[in-house]
This record gives sequence, C-alpha cells and structure tokens, in this order.
Amino acid sequence: MQIRLGYHLEFELAGVTPFITLLNVHPTRELDLLQPEILRVIPDTPIHYYLDVFGNRCARFTAGPGTLVLQSESAIRDSGELDREDPQTREVPVQDLPDEVLQFLLASRYCEVDALSPAAVELFGGITPGWSRVQAICAWVHDKVRFGYGLSRPTKTALDVYTERTGVCRDFQHLAITFCRALNIPARYATGYLGDIGVPPAPTPMDFSAWFEAYLEDRWWTFDARHNARRIGRILMATGRDAADVALTTSFGTAELKHFSVITEEQAQPMAQVMHDEAAAGRV
Amino acid sequence: MQIRLGYHLEFELAGVTPFITLLNVHPTRELDLLQPEILRVIPDTPIHYYLDVFGNRCARFTAGPGTLVLQSESAIRDSGELDREDPQTREVPVQDLPDEVLQFLLASRYCEVDALSPAAVELFGGITPGWSRVQAICAWVHDKVRFGYGLSRPTKTALDVYTERTGVCRDFQHLAITFCRALNIPARYATGYLGDIGVPPAPTPMDFSAWFEAYLEDRWWTFDARHNARRIGRILMATGRDAADVALTTSFGTAELKHFSVITEEQAQPMAQVMHDEAAAGRV
Amino acid sequence: MQIRLGYHLEFELAGVTPFITLLNVHPTRELDLLQPEILRVIPDTPIHYYLDVFGNRCARFTAGPGTLVLQSESAIRDSGELDREDPQTREVPVQDLPDEVLQFLLASRYCEVDALSPAAVELFGGITPGWSRVQAICAWVHDKVRFGYGLSRPTKTALDVYTERTGVCRDFQHLAITFCRALNIPARYATGYLGDIGVPPAPTPMDFSAWFEAYLEDRWWTFDARHNARRIGRILMATGRDAADVALTTSFGTAELKHFSVITEEQAQPMAQVMHDEAAAGRV
Amino acid sequence: MQIRLGYHLEFELAGVTPFITLLNVHPTRELDLLQPEILRVIPDTPIHYYLDVFGNRCARFTAGPGTLVLQSESAIRDSGELDREDPQTREVPVQDLPDEVLQFLLASRYCEVDALSPAAVELFGGITPGWSRVQAICAWVHDKVRFGYGLSRPTKTALDVYTERTGVCRDFQHLAITFCRALNIPARYATGYLGDIGVPPAPTPMDFSAWFEAYLEDRWWTFDARHNARRIGRILMATGRDAADVALTTSFGTAELKHFSVITEEQAQPMAQVMHDEAAAGRV
Repeated sequence: MQIRLGYHLEFELAGVTPFITLLNVHPTRELDLLQPEILRVIPDTPIHYYLDVFGNRCARFTAGPGTLVLQSESAIRDSGELDREDPQTREVPVQDLPDEVLQFLLASRYCEVDALSPAAVELFGGITPGWSRVQAICAWVHDKVRFGYGLSRPTKTALDVYTERTGVCRDFQHLAITFCRALNIPARYATGYLGDIGVPPAPTPMDFSAWFEAYLEDRWWTFDARHNARRIGRILMATGRDAADVALTTSFGTAELKHFSVITEEQAQPMAQVMHDEAAAGRV
Repeated sequence: MQIRLGYHLEFELAGVTPFITLLNVHPTRELDLLQPEILRVIPDTPIHYYLDVFGNRCARFTAGPGTLVLQSESAIRDSGELDREDPQTREVPVQDLPDEVLQFLLASRYCEVDALSPAAVELFGGITPGWSRVQAICAWVHDKVRFGYGLSRPTKTALDVYTERTGVCRDFQHLAITFCRALNIPARYATGYLGDIGVPPAPTPMDFSAWFEAYLEDRWWTFDARHNARRIGRILMATGRDAADVALTTSFGTAELKHFSVITEEQAQPMAQVMHDEAAAGRV
Repeated sequence: MQIRLGYHLEFELAGVTPFITLLNVHPTRELDLLQPEILRVIPDTPIHYYLDVFGNRCARFTAGPGTLVLQSESAIRDSGELDREDPQTREVPVQDLPDEVLQFLLASRYCEVDALSPAAVELFGGITPGWSRVQAICAWVHDKVRFGYGLSRPTKTALDVYTERTGVCRDFQHLAITFCRALNIPARYATGYLGDIGVPPAPTPMDFSAWFEAYLEDRWWTFDARHNARRIGRILMATGRDAADVALTTSFGTAELKHFSVITEEQAQPMAQVMHDEAAAGRV
Repeated sequence: MQIRLGYHLEFELAGVTPFITLLNVHPTRELDLLQPEILRVIPDTPIHYYLDVFGNRCARFTAGPGTLVLQSESAIRDSGELDREDPQTREVPVQDLPDEVLQFLLASRYCEVDALSPAAVELFGGITPGWSRVQAICAWVHDKVRFGYGLSRPTKTALDVYTERTGVCRDFQHLAITFCRALNIPARYATGYLGDIGVPPAPTPMDFSAWFEAYLEDRWWTFDARHNARRIGRILMATGRDAADVALTTSFGTAELKHFSVITEEQAQPMAQVMHDEAAAGRV
C-alpha cells in the first residue's frame, strides 16, 4: 500500500521566533518513503536537522515576524496491515530489560507514575501479566474516558485524566502509559499520522494522532487507548516519554496557529518510486 | 586537594529486588579518581554497568530477600576551588543553543515549566539576562523557601515548592530550574557529594546533595538555590532533567532503608595515585 | 430603572433526577421585584423553597426522565446607578470583623488561600490597605488572565487560574477572592444577572455572571475582576464562599443542558407595580 | 462514666495576633459538662464567644507579642458506650434529605468530590447502599492509607491522600468524606477529644482527634476511617465541611506552637456535679 502524506500549517508570528519541529517521519520509517520528505518553510529560511535524545528527527529554524507556512507532501510505502498483535507476548522482568528501555519506567511531566501506582495495582495488579494486561489497560482507559475536542489543555496530566475522565487522544495515552509504568511495563508516547484506512470514515479522517508503545517480550508494540482497536496506516513520527518530549512544533515566542490540515490517505495509483535523496531533503 | 569519598547504605529487602543505582562519580570526573571506585554489594552479586541517556554511569543488579549493603570508598582529586563564577556570562538565544541542550528547556516530572512561566516572567523578566538573572533566581528561591528535613515528599513538584515555600535541597533546585527554563535558559538537575569544606561545620557535614546547572554562554555552570553560595568540593555524580531521572537508588520492590552514611571530606595526607583501573572497577 | 429578568433552561434527563436551583434573586433584592418571580417547572412538579446557610433562596424538586424546562420572567426596580465606589474605604483588622464575616477568610474548594498566600503577599503586600488594594487585585487579575469560553472546567481552582492565566468569569473572581483572603480581607463569591446596560453592546448581552464582594469598613462591596469596571444593573442571586456553594442548578443524575437563555435588559415602558406576592410565587 | 477533659497550649507570638479557637466541647455536649469549661488565656485578655455557621462554639481574642498560654480543665459525663452502630440504617434519597444537610454533599477545600467521583463509583458503587457502604468506605481507607506523623501537610487534600496513601487522622477522614459525598451520602468532618478508653494503651493516649459523621436514615452517625473501630469517649468539639472549617486554633500572624498537651481520660472518682454556669464561663 502507498500512503500519501503531508501537512499544511500556517502561523502568524509576532516577532522573530525560533522553532523546533518534529514533522518528519521517524527515522525507522525513512526507508519506506517513496518521495523525499521535504519541509518547505515559507518564507524560505535555513533549516538545521538533528536527532534528539530519543532518536527523533527534529528541525530547527527561525522565522517571523509575519506569516509562516510549513508544508510538506510525500508518499510512503506501508504494509497495509493492521497493527501487529500477539496475545502470547510476555512482560519482561525489570532485571532483564535492556538498559535503554529502563527510562520508560520513570515518571515524566504528564505521567505521574508515583501518584497513580496504588490505583494501577488495584485495577490491574490481578490481571495476567503480558499482552493481556496492557490490553486490559487500554480497554479500561477507552471505556472510562470520554473523548472530546476542547477537553484537553497543555497542563493536563495522567492524574487529571484519571480524575476528570475526559480528554483528547494524547490524554488517553498518558493515562495508559502511566498505568503500564506503575506495573513495571516500559511504555512510551508515540505520535504520527493516522487516517481512516480500513475503518468507517471519521469526522476528521486525516490527522496527526497519538498512541503509545509498550515493551513486551523483546520489542516495542503499538497500543492505542484512544481507539482501543488495531488500525492500518499508522506512520510514526516521534516517540518520547510523553507529549512534553514530542511536540510537533515548539515556538519560542507568540505564534498563533491560523491553519492546520493533514493529508494521510491511501494512494490509488502506485507511483514510480523516487530515490530517497537525503541531499534534496536538505538534511545534510 | 584530595577528597575522600564513600558511602554505606543498608537496605532490608522483602523479596528478590532489581536495583538501579547512580552511585558513581560522573564520567566527567572519573579521570580525577585517585582510586578505582568500586561498588561493593553484600551479599556479592553480579553488577552490570551502563550509561543512561544523560551520560550518567548506572549500575544494575538484583538482590534480596534479606539485608543488602552497598558500600564504596575511594578518593578524588579536586581543584579545591570554589564553584566557577563569571558574572559577565551571557544567555544564549534559543536559536543558537546546541541541539543537545534544547531538551533542558522542556517541562519534566518535577518542573512544570508551563504552569510557572507567568510567575517566572513577572518575577525575573525584567532582570538583566545572563549570569545575574540566574543568580537572582537562586537568591529568590533561597530567600523565599524554608529548608527543613521532613518537608519534602516523593511527589513534590516545583509548583508545590512555589506554593508551600518549604522543602529539602532537591525542591529548591526544582523551583530554580523551572524558573530558568521558563525564561528559555537551559537548566538541569545535578546530584553528587557535598561536604562542608571551607564553610562552618554543618550539622550533617557529609552528605549527597542536589544543585543545578544552567547553560550560559558556551557551557554548563553550577548554581545552588539551596545554599545560594559558591562551595568547594562538589563531586558530581549525575545530571538529568530533574530528580526523577537521577535517583541515587531505584528499587523495584519493597526496600527499607536501614542505614545511610556518606563520606566526603578533605584528605589530610595525599595518597599515592593509584592507576584508574576500569577492569578492577568491574566496569568492562 | 426597571429591568426585565428571566431565563429559559431546558434539560434532557436520563432518569428521575433531584434538582437544587438558585435561580431566584437574592432575598436582599426581593422587595425590588415588580412582579412575583415564579419558577415555572415543565412538566409541573412541586417545588420546595428554603434558605441555605448563606441566606440564598434555593428551590428543590424532582423531575425526569425526559425533557425539563425551567422558566421565569419578571421585572425588578434598580437604582440604575453604577456599582457603589468609595476609594476611602478601609480594611478592617481581623479582630474587629463581625463574627459572621470570618468564614470568608477561610480556604474553600476553589480558593486555596494557603497555596497562594506567599504570592499574594509578594504581589499586594506593599499596596496601601483598603479599597485601593482590592482594586489593585482586580486590575492585576483582569490584566493577567485571558478570558475565553471553553477555557474553564468544573475542577478549575484559583491556583489553576494563577498558573494557566485563562478562564471564564468565575475563574477571575476565584483568583481575586483568594488573593483578598490571603491578605485577611474577607471576600465572597457572587452570582447574578448582568447585562450590558450602559456599556457597548456585548456579544452575549444578557447572561448570568459572577463577580465578588469584599468586606471593607462596615459592609460588603461589589468588585469584578473579570470586567474590572463598575457596571449598571447587577441583580444579585446568591453569595457563597466560592462557586461550589452557589451553582445555579445542581442535578443528582445525568442532565444534559439543551437550551440556555437569559433575559436581563432595561424595560422601556415602566409597568404598573404588581404587589410582591409570596403566595403566588409558591414560596409559602 | 466521667471523663476529665483539658488542654494546655503554649504559643510564642511575634506580634499582636488575633486568634480564633474552637476549643470548647460542641454545644450538643454542653449539658453533659460536670464543670463549666473555662478557657484560661494567659496573659488575661477579653474573650468573645460566638457560634459559627455550623453551630460550633468559637472564641475570639487578641494576644501577643510574647508567650500565650491557652488552658482549660473540666469534666464531662459520658455514656461510656461504644459509638452507636446500626447496620440496618439506610441511605436517604437526595430528594428526601433535610435542607440543612444538603451542603454536606458539596465539594470543599480538602474534599474534591468532583475529582474523586469516578473512583468512588468504581470502588463502592456496587456495594449495598446504607450503613454497609459507609462501613466499606471506612475499611477501604483504613486498609489502604498508612498512618504516620509527619505524613501530612496543611495543603493535603483527599485527592492527595488517594494518590499518596499516607496521612494523619484528618487525612483519612477527608478521603472517606469525599467518597461518601460522591455517592450522595452527606458527610461532615468532626473533631474532638479521643483517648484510649477501652482499647490497649496507645503511644499518645490522650489527644484531639478527627473522625467524621455520615447522614443515614434520620440522623448523623459517627464513623472513623482512621481507626475503623467503634470507640468509647469521643467528646465532640466541632463539625464542618472539612478541616478548613474547624481548625482548633487559627492565628492571624506568626504563632509558634511551643507546647501542646491534652487530657482526656476516665475519672476514677465521680465528682459532685457542678452547675453548668454560663456566666462563669464568660460566654454571656
């Protein structure tokens, strides 16, 4: 399957404004790109790329004052399959976890593991460890939290979601991540493209979305407490401890978002593969 | 100057308990060691060393049930000078900060930058940027927050410190770090040995302590909102976004601390330097 | 001046639902009513009236399942003058406050006096006590907090408003009330009708609104941190420690609000005064 | 049974300090007093008594600078029986609750009913309504929360107790009260004398303590989530929505507590009853 990817963001900037963006597909998906993924910044400005400590591709540039457009359009090859699933997958005892996974057991800005540990143990301590326990967490969060645009805020943490029982996709994942960590299951926040391939058309069929990954057996697995369903066509952009690590755009100054649209849909006519061209993408 | 370093920790473990410790001096200080720094675990158990994402040397092992002793004694060479100071040092515009420093502008578990940004701007927005501004933050926190053992808790955040105005050393640093980040000054949490060299004898002359580092001009500088004074003989062990990243010991299971003592004092008789021996330290 | 008053609320109730409403004008304004203020409940149901501990007139009834309409229309005599103002008014030392006023110095659900006391003292401790200090608090809150529908939530406290700097009218008053109490100035929450008499037409010219009262010299005075301006035609309905005490409607069960409109406007043609008739109003 | 009652409190006051105290037995117990309960303030100062909005007897006076002693000694008649118990007692539907009880369903400073409602329903929604449900709440809080001096703080709320699972007696009651209210069971905070009559001698056998009352069937009943056991010799002093309403002493100014001791023990030799003398008690 080929998926057309892209976005069009427009900001009004009050002054000279440094920007950091995480708008590229994740390095692990770069080889699947059928077209180089070029971030067009209008007006034109030099972009500096780097990998952050989690391995996400970040872009830095300075813009404004005035109107700023960020735009990209490309295409990516995808398996066209549902999120991988394996109900037999086991939890890994802490002492056997890889070193680099341990940090995803810790509390973070939006995931107060300390505060929600007792509740996590009460709710999920008795459930069979492994895939089924993470799945039980997803089902619980999905059932108990009501989705609604406008029901989030920049300071909303997992504890807030647990008490208010409302939120947007990121809030669902923060609560699930916190429960996992409280049970010593490493969990990290994931953000990327998610359309409606294979599911009934959604009111907002094409958007960025958040999900999470849990470390079981020997790898990271995709879970989604917002939808609590396997999906086709998730294109990962970034992972981190929580949303604080992977804001799609961070501006250091007043930046009013004027327009926001995302493309992520199956591409009917397979296009000839264009060579993945790092130089053209301006990443060198 | 030579400083004798060491600790003796004793835990009672209810069951088999995986441990992560950050009890070594920081890799940047390893070349100053006059003796290999060997973590003795009693009863003996294999230790695995690794560097975490912040570059701290971590040790992992499994112990228990029963009594666990963690012990070390070594010595380190130190300049014997006060913390470096340079009041002329400037803040770096966000667009000019090194990539790897940017993460220390973000909110973290104990540092709700978002929540305290308005207060930070009101309190310190008008102060000359640079060293003097970070110094003003330290002085404010030092003057406004009352130190007291027992006035902290594992869930206490910078916002709690701002509202309660009480805490232990880590709480002082969390508030100062949060103010710095809110003003776009990168700041990170630091933990290490701190005795009373060069100051009047303290009630607890030898202990681990927390301070913080702010990035100014072209490097990280040591600041200490708890003492608000330059000190001699800080031996850095670990840095991170906040205390959540650098707990000296993390146990996954019930571990009751029965004994805790630290050695960090000037060594009268310079000892012959022992070769720094990685193999002996068991780190290879 | 005569002001036409009324409201039309419509709920969809899932089951049998006990209701408490505070939809009457405050007992201190009842003698100004030109028409009895009759709460029409559709479908018809017996209503029980009582005064709560703060002296507000409350109504209790049970309704549902199905559609519930609450409706009233009446008229009230008003001075037509701006909120009273007297910049010479002094603060009352705590020891001289009337007994019944003391409770309005305490912390309450939405007003964490304890948590915001240090900030209150830092911001307003140096300002001349009395009217000018309360006025300074109103101006500060008005200037620092951004108004926006959708920027509130049922759990939002004064501390949240202080950190998030956003809210609706109730949030502005909670923060101002908390600052006042922290400085030992009794302050209470007020709710009532507020239209746009004497000011440029507003987008929502007729609505219920919140303001607050501060106790100075020898009485309660009206202040409004949301508008920070004297207004004409506030018709008080209820006062309490904060919004938790004076919800206009409280339902014990699922009640979806389907319609909400308020009338509060100057009445061009003075109507013949109708006797205030307690029996007709169903309050006996 | 006769119980000897008293206290000796000593403060050091920095300046002239207004005080409010709730150190008398509750008006409902005044007729049981065998001796007038006279609050001695040293140095002598005029005392003004009043009833607050909850019906508690409060005293106001101004003292300082310097040392302040508050002292009282009296005796009271008590049934000598355990707290009343009736497992058949039913919950009252909201619509049938007495008007004056309704306020004890609302959220208050330390009882965030809104935030803990979902958890309350999940934990106790399925339990038979009535006495057994309140009892289940007491048992849960008693089992899940760890008691410890030093594990509280002035800002600690029911939600904090729920997440931290530690506290002193007031914290236990706040959490239980919040759960009750979330289930539409009116609950109020109670404070008074509690010794160790009829139980094994406690480390602090005589002290003030907190418990709570739940409204069931037709009256308020005593419950105690801290001890989760019926006790002999509770002497009620005050009730309110939570601890914010019934601080035993409130000082408006710096007041350092230097000494605190309480007497509440069975009196071996019945004393001749002294007439209850309001004039002598200075309350007229």
